[in-house]
Amino acid sequence: MQITEKIITQAEALQPEMVAQRRDFHKYAESGWFEMRTTSIIARKLTELGYEVLTGEDVCDRDARMGVADDATLDKQYERAIAQGADPEFVQATRGGMTGAIGILRCGEGPTVALRFDIDALGVIESQDADHRPFAEGWNSVNPGMMHACGHDGHATVGLGVAKVLMDIKEHLRGTVKLIFQPAEEGVRGAKSIVAKGHLNGVDYLLGTHVTGNTKYPNCMVCPGAKDSLATSKYDVIFHGKSAHAGGSPNGGNNAMLAAATAVLNLQAIPRHGGGATRINVGKLVAGSGRNVICDEAFMEIETRGANTELNTYVENYALRILENAAAMHGCTVEYKLMGAAESLTSDVSLAQRLRKVWEAAGFTLTEEDMMTAGGSEDFSYMMNAVQQQGGQATFFRTLTKLSAGAHNRRFDFDEVFLQNGVKLFCTAVYDLLKTTTK
Amino acid sequence: MQITEKIITQAEALQPEMVAQRRDFHKYAESGWFEMRTTSIIARKLTELGYEVLTGEDVCDRDARMGVADDATLDKQYERAIAQGADPEFVQATRGGMTGAIGILRCGEGPTVALRFDIDALGVIESQDADHRPFAEGWNSVNPGMMHACGHDGHATVGLGVAKVLMDIKEHLRGTVKLIFQPAEEGVRGAKSIVAKGHLNGVDYLLGTHVTGNTKYPNCMVCPGAKDSLATSKYDVIFHGKSAHAGGSPNGGNNAMLAAATAVLNLQAIPRHGGGATRINVGKLVAGSGRNVICDEAFMEIETRGANTELNTYVENYALRILENAAAMHGCTVEYKLMGAAESLTSDVSLAQRLRKVWEAAGFTLTEEDMMTAGGSEDFSYMMNAVQQQGGQATFFRTLTKLSAGAHNRRFDFDEVFLQNGVKLFCTAVYDLLKTTTK
Amino acid sequence: MQITEKIITQAEALQPEMVAQRRDFHKYAESGWFEMRTTSIIARKLTELGYEVLTGEDVCDRDARMGVADDATLDKQYERAIAQGADPEFVQATRGGMTGAIGILRCGEGPTVALRFDIDALGVIESQDADHRPFAEGWNSVNPGMMHACGHDGHATVGLGVAKVLMDIKEHLRGTVKLIFQPAEEGVRGAKSIVAKGHLNGVDYLLGTHVTGNTKYPNCMVCPGAKDSLATSKYDVIFHGKSAHAGGSPNGGNNAMLAAATAVLNLQAIPRHGGGATRINVGKLVAGSGRNVICDEAFMEIETRGANTELNTYVENYALRILENAAAMHGCTVEYKLMGAAESLTSDVSLAQRLRKVWEAAGFTLTEEDMMTAGGSEDFSYMMNAVQQQGGQATFFRTLTKLSAGAHNRRFDFDEVFLQNGVKLFCTAVYDLLKTTTK
Amino acid sequence: MQITEKIITQAEALQPEMVAQRRDFHKYAESGWFEMRTTSIIARKLTELGYEVLTGEDVCDRDARMGVADDATLDKQYERAIAQGADPEFVQATRGGMTGAIGILRCGEGPTVALRFDIDALGVIESQDADHRPFAEGWNSVNPGMMHACGHDGHATVGLGVAKVLMDIKEHLRGTVKLIFQPAEEGVRGAKSIVAKGHLNGVDYLLGTHVTGNTKYPNCMVCPGAKDSLATSKYDVIFHGKSAHAGGSPNGGNNAMLAAATAVLNLQAIPRHGGGATRINVGKLVAGSGRNVICDEAFMEIETRGANTELNTYVENYALRILENAAAMHGCTVEYKLMGAAESLTSDVSLAQRLRKVWEAAGFTLTEEDMMTAGGSEDFSYMMNAVQQQGGQATFFRTLTKLSAGAHNRRFDFDEVFLQNGVKLFCTAVYDLLKTTTK
Repeated sequence: MQITEKIITQAEALQPEMVAQRRDFHKYAESGWFEMRTTSIIARKLTELGYEVLTGEDVCDRDARMGVADDATLDKQYERAIAQGADPEFVQATRGGMTGAIGILRCGEGPTVALRFDIDALGVIESQDADHRPFAEGWNSVNPGMMHACGHDGHATVGLGVAKVLMDIKEHLRGTVKLIFQPAEEGVRGAKSIVAKGHLNGVDYLLGTHVTGNTKYPNCMVCPGAKDSLATSKYDVIFHGKSAHAGGSPNGGNNAMLAAATAVLNLQAIPRHGGGATRINVGKLVAGSGRNVICDEAFMEIETRGANTELNTYVENYALRILENAAAMHGCTVEYKLMGAAESLTSDVSLAQRLRKVWEAAGFTLTEEDMMTAGGSEDFSYMMNAVQQQGGQATFFRTLTKLSAGAHNRRFDFDEVFLQNGVKLFCTAVYDLLKTTTK
Repeated sequence: MQITEKIITQAEALQPEMVAQRRDFHKYAESGWFEMRTTSIIARKLTELGYEVLTGEDVCDRDARMGVADDATLDKQYERAIAQGADPEFVQATRGGMTGAIGILRCGEGPTVALRFDIDALGVIESQDADHRPFAEGWNSVNPGMMHACGHDGHATVGLGVAKVLMDIKEHLRGTVKLIFQPAEEGVRGAKSIVAKGHLNGVDYLLGTHVTGNTKYPNCMVCPGAKDSLATSKYDVIFHGKSAHAGGSPNGGNNAMLAAATAVLNLQAIPRHGGGATRINVGKLVAGSGRNVICDEAFMEIETRGANTELNTYVENYALRILENAAAMHGCTVEYKLMGAAESLTSDVSLAQRLRKVWEAAGFTLTEEDMMTAGGSEDFSYMMNAVQQQGGQATFFRTLTKLSAGAHNRRFDFDEVFLQNGVKLFCTAVYDLLKTTTK
Repeated sequence: MQITEKIITQAEALQPEMVAQRRDFHKYAESGWFEMRTTSIIARKLTELGYEVLTGEDVCDRDARMGVADDATLDKQYERAIAQGADPEFVQATRGGMTGAIGILRCGEGPTVALRFDIDALGVIESQDADHRPFAEGWNSVNPGMMHACGHDGHATVGLGVAKVLMDIKEHLRGTVKLIFQPAEEGVRGAKSIVAKGHLNGVDYLLGTHVTGNTKYPNCMVCPGAKDSLATSKYDVIFHGKSAHAGGSPNGGNNAMLAAATAVLNLQAIPRHGGGATRINVGKLVAGSGRNVICDEAFMEIETRGANTELNTYVENYALRILENAAAMHGCTVEYKLMGAAESLTSDVSLAQRLRKVWEAAGFTLTEEDMMTAGGSEDFSYMMNAVQQQGGQATFFRTLTKLSAGAHNRRFDFDEVFLQNGVKLFCTAVYDLLKTTTK
Repeated sequence: MQITEKIITQAEALQPEMVAQRRDFHKYAESGWFEMRTTSIIARKLTELGYEVLTGEDVCDRDARMGVADDATLDKQYERAIAQGADPEFVQATRGGMTGAIGILRCGEGPTVALRFDIDALGVIESQDADHRPFAEGWNSVNPGMMHACGHDGHATVGLGVAKVLMDIKEHLRGTVKLIFQPAEEGVRGAKSIVAKGHLNGVDYLLGTHVTGNTKYPNCMVCPGAKDSLATSKYDVIFHGKSAHAGGSPNGGNNAMLAAATAVLNLQAIPRHGGGATRINVGKLVAGSGRNVICDEAFMEIETRGANTELNTYVENYALRILENAAAMHGCTVEYKLMGAAESLTSDVSLAQRLRKVWEAAGFTLTEEDMMTAGGSEDFSYMMNAVQQQGGQATFFRTLTKLSAGAHNRRFDFDEVFLQNGVKLFCTAVYDLLKTTTK
């Protein structure tokens, strides 16, 4: 029990440093594939702590990244990152949106444990209300339209705290630890490219967490498992038609507006599935150039979801068929591009129950239920499924914390005790999985 | 002028016989491709008058007929025709829907004049109101759902009257007369198959008429030309999907109802054409088998129209593209079959003006305008276009008559003076075109 | 245990008589509100057994019946019932579709137990395959388009068997038994009108069953409870527009085809519900009179469903709003009529567990699970919810039986051991609920 | 003929000045209701010439203006106009988009002749191709997104030339001349507000023109009349719904995307009209805020047209009904605002023929036809109809000119001989209408 106590003590000692780090990340919020400053700082710290560090092309498979901005935008963001104090050495590898970092700690023979920390902000304009703490205290986002409104600033900070503590107790561990700092979780765009690079091969245990509101369980610190997140696919769609004068020659065009409207109604009309919940949404549609011109182009942002991957695939395939035929029906063509995707995710019950014992023994308070329903979508699912398919165990636990507003809200903030709690939870779990007598 | 007077006198003398014949045709009304009794009577009379007569396979090209019923129905109609007094000899050639007859009168060297008389009834249930003359006098249709509500009983009768009179004046004619008794004009299904058989080849002059209400011109007998009938295409459409239980497995089917509804809205939304009037109609839709079953089949009757053939083709091609893609969109297949078609039609102005002079000289009263707008669709257009394309002249004149109700109304009837007027108009015209001094 | 043994013995002794009765009901299958012969026979038998019997206006609330045919059809069915041997006395009350019967047995002070037996056939044409037993043995349905393809012939027969046995053991019971022979369960049209009449008021225990295939549990006789049937509403819909000539005056009509197509797509596009499964189906659509006529009338059969009553109400209200606006959009009007409805249903777990003990004690084999998922919809839900809302307990148990084909299949048949099993299950349950020492 | 010669001579003498003025207007192109600089220059010149001048509130009825920008934008444009050299005195009245000017010349008793000159640019980005003359010579538009791509810079210049010449010959005129410099013709937004102010009351003759390509008639200078412009109505539409999370609570919103898509398809499906050409277009649609959010707002730009005002009204009323019901169907609301409108227009044949004689006598070459089909829409129609309804005569003549590209093209330019030709045509016409011996 000595090591557990040591972990707890150190986590608490790290709190002031972590608070500062979290607020720095918060202030310089960077959206998916733009986390160039964030990545450079993480890579610098991991290196200083003595980790073997991967960055750039070694982290994400370039072509498996989804929803990446165009080169001009990426270049502009690179300059911004440098201007905002990115580490001059480590920022280089991130050029072109090759963000994310992995720190590896090898402690001899033994199982491999991977921990995932997502690091990106999202496309929200942060509140400037007087009672929004980040604004009141001056560490609100300086990057317009980018905000850590989902707590990934905290996740990244916890990851660095974990790195510090594990390095301190490394002689008590047998096996390998991989700390995966993942870019572009928002829009579920990044995890797949890390899996594609092979980083989950040979992983025996995989852990990830998300800061989660504690309204339902005000006195609990953690729920050890999760289930039933929705599998999802995100597409950008463009219908190409031909313009013509709407008064003189309405027949002369190929009306992309008609293709798009037909698509919207028919997408929404995809038959429900007897096997479980499905979703479809056309969230955005921008079509046409002027009132008296036959519309020649229509852009849509859509997403499909399903209670499991099979259900999502049903909706996705049906949706693509609708897009193709709605276009062809009106003599238009259609292009669509996968902008993000996640599979469904279910924690291994045995791993969740093992963590329950470890954490109860450490004095933490857990929810009664082992597995919270996840809701929404998480691309950590790709990593979990990769590990589970090769016989490993994975869980997505929920670190319960007081929130100032719901996730994705422009007034989002969290009680920073989350930072030390996160470190305590990950490190006690890793210690249990890799301590000398384990396995 | 002697011959003209003779024509007029004879036409008037024929009136009682024509009235009887018209009422017989009216009573035994036969819809398109079912005109077996009607055809047999016409062929018998033409033969008795001394015409060279074509029937059966020699009239319509079998495969170019459109909208033909199935064999079982045709067999049943054949039996009905015999039971209703068809000529035993001539009815045989009509078996299987090979109806229609052509009478040829050869008068030596000279131009060829073809006259068209359509003979079919349509799918209307005749009125049994006390003040509907055919019912009041006992000669209303005995064939349920078949009624001469468009005056083709009169057209056929006029054709027989013309046959009689022309035979009587044949020594004053030089050239050839073809009397074409066309089946299946309703639904514009028959004329194309007569053209396909080559009967319009070498025709120098082609005349046809339709009995037309005289409300606008109460004192006029005829308008010598017509223009602007709509080109049209008629299709029967079947969407094939797959049924499934709507509660348990809505995803298990291929919903033909969705394909059909998408088709209806998009057909109606075919862009208007800058070049002139177009039309589209889904007149009938029958889909699905039960409330709680995913619809596996949907049947539609549609038609397209255009102010000219090119405009109709625009709508038709667009419509077929919609049908294909509406089906594919929902995993269904679609079959469609052309059930009828007509081209646009415009009389030759010079022929109309020539007839004006002939008829004014004969003492008939004409409308001020040479060319009435036709409205609707007429498959006589195939014959006119065939003649006009090879350098001949054609006109579709309007014989103006008092009507009891509009065409296709179940209370339709016409003032039978139309019969003698029709004979007068056709015969004086033919005489002018073929008299010794002509051409 | 003596009484239980007596029940079992008597149920087995009744088997030959029940088999004959079931086959009689099967042969003279009567669809909902047409069960005039069936009702008269049941009423006759209950009377002869000594039950207090309710029929006609005393069973169903006349105006709360759903999906009743028109008077002419009902009169024709009444004549048919008489011609097929209906009881001359008891058939009279059923005139006009007032079918169904209730038998009451009063045994002094004590709880009231109600049992429900549904008695109607459905709209299926029975198989005449040589290996379809009813046909092979000559007791297939003589009423075209009506078939006991859901086992209600068995349910009604079990009800009569139960009536006989309970009367025999009445001195061992304290309280009241109501045997409710319900009409028009198919299409979920009848139960609500029995509840509306007040027959479930004061009922302490309510039991019903359905013959259910035993493929999953080949050796089990019964599952004591059910959950999660779908709440549902069934509507017939008519859009009224105005016809016009599609070529000449497409603007002159009010196109009911457009209203219907818009309704179909938008109904299917009703947003999914975050709270659970929903369904919508347009199962049938018949619209329009002819290819070249603007459609003036469109008839649809639709149904909505939801995992619970609230979810179904969400879909239903949304659907009605769509119908109204789809009509108004095209200058049409719409009428819709509720043709059937069911609520969701969940057995009381404590009652299901009590029956498990009773039936295990009687030596019957039960499924491991207490509550089977119901699937589909059942209007017994109205009765269950009425009883549960007033503090009583209700269950819908499944009597497992070998079936020859799935429910609603034209080759449906069941192993007739179901008949004695049904009697054993109901009577042992009633005895437990009303035996002297109960409550 | 002396006066006519004088007009011709003076028009030619004015050419250099007019070319300079036209290029100034072209360079400082101002879109509808932004013509503050243009108006101030026109008012200054008319005043200097001795005209009675109306500006500001005295020209357009404030509330009858259509498609006016918001106040902030108008203020910004006002500042721009001043910065670009607007006349300091006359610009003041234009503040807030009260643009346009009227010059009145009173010459005693006699008829009133009104001439219309439209002055606005349109929303096109001007070409910067080397061979686009305005760019090559440095007088292309300096206002981004505003370009005189329809020749109104020329129209305004012609108006000033006419003002000069008529003043010079005023002693030969009897009656009143009104020179109406109309704002916001593009989008058909301005004319109605001038009519509403009463300026067409008592007008006996109304003339307007448009520079028109002379490809069809390379050697002609003018066509004296026009017919068959399309009546039109332009609407901006906003659907208001409610957002919700598309994954968690798709039922929680009111989906404005569905309302908009339903509207698009049904608008396009408005039945064609048997009475003549109609048009409908949804030219622009912007809907939704994000991929995973139920769309809460959708903005559309639509327009309807008809071969005459009645036909346009048919489409317009049908369209508004669709908008209302598409919104209500999905629990949304809709707002729409008329942004522009024009009626159909037909020149008085007798006036056109009178001008033909005048112009032929003056030695100008006219097209063979008196009345060109207008195509497109023109809000001069409001003025013409106002005059015609009170018994006056009006014509919209076409001044034929060599164009470098079609109207509304970013490379549009015209042969500046148009300027002197315009002056010649208007002034000879006015002289004929008001010369001492007239009327």
